[in-house]
Amino acid sequence: MQHFEPLIENAWYVAAWSSELRDKPLARQILNQNVVLFRDSFGRVGVLEDRCCHRAAPLAQGEVVAGGLQCGYHGMTFDVDGQCVANPGEPNISSKMKVQSFPIIERQNFVWVWMGEPSLAEENDIVDFPFHKQGEEWPFQFERYHIGCNYMLIIDNLMDLSHLAYVHRRTIGDSASNHAKVEMNVEPTENGVKFLRWILDTPPPPTFVKAMGFKTNVDRWSDFEYLAPSSVLQWAGGLEVGRNAQKNRHQKGAYSMRMFHAATPETEHSCHYFWSVANGYRQDDPHAATELYNEIAPTFDEDVKMLEAQQRILERDPSQALILRQQDEALSFARKAIRNLANKTVLNTLN
Amino acid sequence: MQHFEPLIENAWYVAAWSSELRDKPLARQILNQNVVLFRDSFGRVGVLEDRCCHRAAPLAQGEVVAGGLQCGYHGMTFDVDGQCVANPGEPNISSKMKVQSFPIIERQNFVWVWMGEPSLAEENDIVDFPFHKQGEEWPFQFERYHIGCNYMLIIDNLMDLSHLAYVHRRTIGDSASNHAKVEMNVEPTENGVKFLRWILDTPPPPTFVKAMGFKTNVDRWSDFEYLAPSSVLQWAGGLEVGRNAQKNRHQKGAYSMRMFHAATPETEHSCHYFWSVANGYRQDDPHAATELYNEIAPTFDEDVKMLEAQQRILERDPSQALILRQQDEALSFARKAIRNLANKTVLNTLN
Amino acid sequence: MQHFEPLIENAWYVAAWSSELRDKPLARQILNQNVVLFRDSFGRVGVLEDRCCHRAAPLAQGEVVAGGLQCGYHGMTFDVDGQCVANPGEPNISSKMKVQSFPIIERQNFVWVWMGEPSLAEENDIVDFPFHKQGEEWPFQFERYHIGCNYMLIIDNLMDLSHLAYVHRRTIGDSASNHAKVEMNVEPTENGVKFLRWILDTPPPPTFVKAMGFKTNVDRWSDFEYLAPSSVLQWAGGLEVGRNAQKNRHQKGAYSMRMFHAATPETEHSCHYFWSVANGYRQDDPHAATELYNEIAPTFDEDVKMLEAQQRILERDPSQALILRQQDEALSFARKAIRNLANKTVLNTLN
Repeated sequence: MQHFEPLIENAWYVAAWSSELRDKPLARQILNQNVVLFRDSFGRVGVLEDRCCHRAAPLAQGEVVAGGLQCGYHGMTFDVDGQCVANPGEPNISSKMKVQSFPIIERQNFVWVWMGEPSLAEENDIVDFPFHKQGEEWPFQFERYHIGCNYMLIIDNLMDLSHLAYVHRRTIGDSASNHAKVEMNVEPTENGVKFLRWILDTPPPPTFVKAMGFKTNVDRWSDFEYLAPSSVLQWAGGLEVGRNAQKNRHQKGAYSMRMFHAATPETEHSCHYFWSVANGYRQDDPHAATELYNEIAPTFDEDVKMLEAQQRILERDPSQALILRQQDEALSFARKAIRNLANKTVLNTLN
Repeated sequence: MQHFEPLIENAWYVAAWSSELRDKPLARQILNQNVVLFRDSFGRVGVLEDRCCHRAAPLAQGEVVAGGLQCGYHGMTFDVDGQCVANPGEPNISSKMKVQSFPIIERQNFVWVWMGEPSLAEENDIVDFPFHKQGEEWPFQFERYHIGCNYMLIIDNLMDLSHLAYVHRRTIGDSASNHAKVEMNVEPTENGVKFLRWILDTPPPPTFVKAMGFKTNVDRWSDFEYLAPSSVLQWAGGLEVGRNAQKNRHQKGAYSMRMFHAATPETEHSCHYFWSVANGYRQDDPHAATELYNEIAPTFDEDVKMLEAQQRILERDPSQALILRQQDEALSFARKAIRNLANKTVLNTLN
Repeated sequence: MQHFEPLIENAWYVAAWSSELRDKPLARQILNQNVVLFRDSFGRVGVLEDRCCHRAAPLAQGEVVAGGLQCGYHGMTFDVDGQCVANPGEPNISSKMKVQSFPIIERQNFVWVWMGEPSLAEENDIVDFPFHKQGEEWPFQFERYHIGCNYMLIIDNLMDLSHLAYVHRRTIGDSASNHAKVEMNVEPTENGVKFLRWILDTPPPPTFVKAMGFKTNVDRWSDFEYLAPSSVLQWAGGLEVGRNAQKNRHQKGAYSMRMFHAATPETEHSCHYFWSVANGYRQDDPHAATELYNEIAPTFDEDVKMLEAQQRILERDPSQALILRQQDEALSFARKAIRNLANKTVLNTLN
């Protein structure tokens, strides 16, 4: 098994949270491309190559002006499609005066970008996450991390939750002795993998107690879906033993959260990790989403430390083999899915 | 057009300001060579390879002693010509005990160095700048910046002053609406290019008002000359509308300054930027040169930020084309001049 | 002469001071290998590849548990031989579940490691240094430095003590005028070189006076032995003029110290420098070893600055020749010894 996956250009990626784009341009590297993101005065989002066509100045050091994004070196201005709309001090705008632009879709608080062949971009392929758009019902918080690792190491991490007992043993991790109680049901899907993980009749971790005041053991579930190349949907929660969580986990008011994870490659060696957590159990409490975020966020720092160390070690000798454990079943399906997608997009490009 | 220019070895470059060389040796990289500069006890300046011939110790970590520069590892001492003059604890100095030295000329407060073939070094080819040697008449201040960009990006910057309205809009920049009023007269020269730029009947910028108390519109000029490979002479100023600046700008007491710019390559990707500004309007006021320096210096920081960003972008893909605008006329002549010089020095070396 | 020496794998190297290994694992790079060192609950020391065989996680971020070293990602545990002894949540331990281990010997406060072919490791080849194990008689202090230079630059440094008058002129250095008085006796050995250096009838340096209250001139000796690849034994001291130091330097109570130097390659460009100093003159004074350490330690910082600068200069152009001085005799024998050893170990590996 190769450890780093190639970058798949013909796919939608989360480029930014909508709210990152206000009145300033934003520099970001995505799939090895240095781009500038900005929101124009009409509210439209543009993703352009971060290089003025005139003298290669960084457009991200420019300013959003009425017609678009103005270069900070000699004042040329480009609209969200990369067309020059102002060429100060000169009578004409030549047809060569443009910079590359990339297709974008803004939806459900995400800015999705397509870095590959524009004619292949299908809006319907974008992952749906309605929990970002039901307003009060699923109040949520979100975050972005820059991580120095191949994006698939993040997916690996999410596909084997046994790491909770070690990486997160000081935060949300269950105790290692719970291993014996885990029931895993893993199923490959058309473009990824799903798994449902139960730990039945287990003491509730501190996070659970803090949120719900549990006084008895609980049945806990983790319902995950990976959608290649870079999204993971997570639904997790618990109910008191005796409430038949395996049937009733959809109940309103059950302790549960919906999470979205997106690992957008920056380079082969680094990525942007976008995640959100939406509150399913105290949806009328304006503080509940923030309290939940405050419980969850520190665990990501623990993952970052592990993932970046893992990346450095793999880079030293990417050809040295790793071994598979039984608990790597979901991880293996995820790796299979990303390779299927890589092959498929190569065929699409050839057609 | 290629964006980075090759380094031309057979030319004079500013290596240091005279006053940088006091009682300590100074390490500096020039045209990819690591050298040590020092002034010996007779006042002579030496530029030597910064590597002791014995164990490759850094001579710049040594000390200036009576006979020359003493290595800080085992005490071998070299004079300004690189000859070993002391070999402590040993009876003889062998003829192999020497380090490479480079021709230098100290003149008009500059230390000029010749990094190429010594026999081609002609003192007469050094750019003359008498405004550094008229004492009280042209009081001046000077500075040195290390900039992470190819030296020609600095020349480009100086050859298109339309950047003032953007890069320097918060300091000395005129407003973008002045673009329409600019008159440019560009002329190639034997080894570079000259231009004279006028903005007539324009409100004086704050710097002008602070210096001269202008109460009416002014006629402003910028008189530039680029001399390949690395020097730019600048004469800039303004007179009240109605005083016929285009004829009378030589008048004593007119608001004017003389600047010298030298971009000495450190590597292909970085350079030393030496500049000075000499006061032409309050030459008897001991504070005038410093006040002028204080107005000008912050603008160089603005340029550095732009130039280093431009360099990083060009390095990502040096082959990606740029477009030329009409305002790039002087820049184009400058690039032509540097290539002519590169070809000429190749021929000289072959002869 | 080539300036950097290749790394010799089939040899014993100091990996750590014994006391560095307590309850936490320790990451270290030795001969380009990233290893983790740890002491298990039985007191045994293990040196393992710092890469879990499962997902390449850093074992050095794990924890020492009862059975060995537990990986911090998913909890696999390895003993000092690299065998997996715990595979949490799974029924079996497969024979593939192991990580590479390296032979070690712990002796005289050193952890020695063998990074090459294990079958060639001969315990008898380890350098003996009894002064670390005589308890009160030779009280000692020790240190470890990370230095950004090829390990042989440290050996060079120790082989030519004329650098004391320059590198250490502000600390322990004798004055340059002592050069004339130096008597050197250099002898190659089977696997290295020895030298004995005398400066007779010389004023005692401040360090000597502080330790012994010398009121007259002294005779000083430096007795060095280099043992390839990486150890230097040093015995240095002085006696008052007239006490016939050349015969009587073994006398109990003579001002003398025993030092051990080990330069363990990290990479070709960097190393770990282990050194200790044992007190031979006030062996019953519990403060004497610390006072001596405090005199000596600052001189190593002076060496580091020189060695790292030398390394950077040599890396710029490793092929540029250096010259040899008469005082490089011991250095030349040391370089010859390391090359002999390199050739010999190649032959051993072929047999």
